[in-house]
Amino acid sequence: MSGVCIFCKIIRGEIPSMKIFESEKTYAFLDIGPLSRGHSLIIPKHHGAKLHDIPDDQLSELLAVTKKIALAQGVENYNVLQNNGRIAHQEVDHVHFHLIPKPNETQGLGIEWPTQKVDKDALTKLLEEIKAKM
Amino acid sequence: MSGVCIFCKIIRGEIPSMKIFESEKTYAFLDIGPLSRGHSLIIPKHHGAKLHDIPDDQLSELLAVTKKIALAQGVENYNVLQNNGRIAHQEVDHVHFHLIPKPNETQGLGIEWPTQKVDKDALTKLLEEIKAKM
Repeated sequence: MSGVCIFCKIIRGEIPSMKIFESEKTYAFLDIGPLSRGHSLIIPKHHGAKLHDIPDDQLSELLAVTKKIALAQGVENYNVLQNNGRIAHQEVDHVHFHLIPKPNETQGLGIEWPTQKVDKDALTKLLEEIKAKM
Repeated sequence: MSGVCIFCKIIRGEIPSMKIFESEKTYAFLDIGPLSRGHSLIIPKHHGAKLHDIPDDQLSELLAVTKKIALAQGVENYNVLQNNGRIAHQEVDHVHFHLIPKPNETQGLGIEWPTQKVDKDALTKLLEEIKAKM
């Protein structure tokens, strides 16, 4: 828990939220600045800014809760998004998963997909680098 | 497993992949059409098109593996994205999580964030509808 974190304050009930779900490890609520109807946030109670700051056991339930909310909403088309870092569009420094229904082209998450040209040898070299650190 | 699914074929080794990680439940490999250096895909071995099609126990490890790959790459800024449905930018109908490093403004995932005006009463009503189905 962090004293100044807005999401920790929501978890503690010091700031009101549109709470959908709460368990020992997980908290979920409606985003009050939604991209579409049903836009929800699913967060670990464990405070950490980025995904790699959260212990594995605090991550294990997040997707099941996200799924549960998608099923409760009956949405078929949606994006699940978790941003790390300002440049990657993160605005609150407490890990949060967006569940964003995509009802049509204009509402919901907008995605740009600037695919890069790939050099097979460079990709193979990168793979070896990553595997060496796994 | 699905006979025609390209990701199931990758899991079975019938199509080669730049494999980063494999366990009983999870498979991860480099995206060969990356948005940035290190763009990886993390998938459950259980075949299902959308997040809500995957059993909870097959979801529990995915984020820990995603985290492990982010740490191995040493990336600080990145997006984790999982798309459901063509309109939501899903191209392969087997659940996959994109780990997309965001090294700068132009490379990596591009995000548009069309926030909606919110009616508090409508949001409260929606919350009650969702909670009733949780």
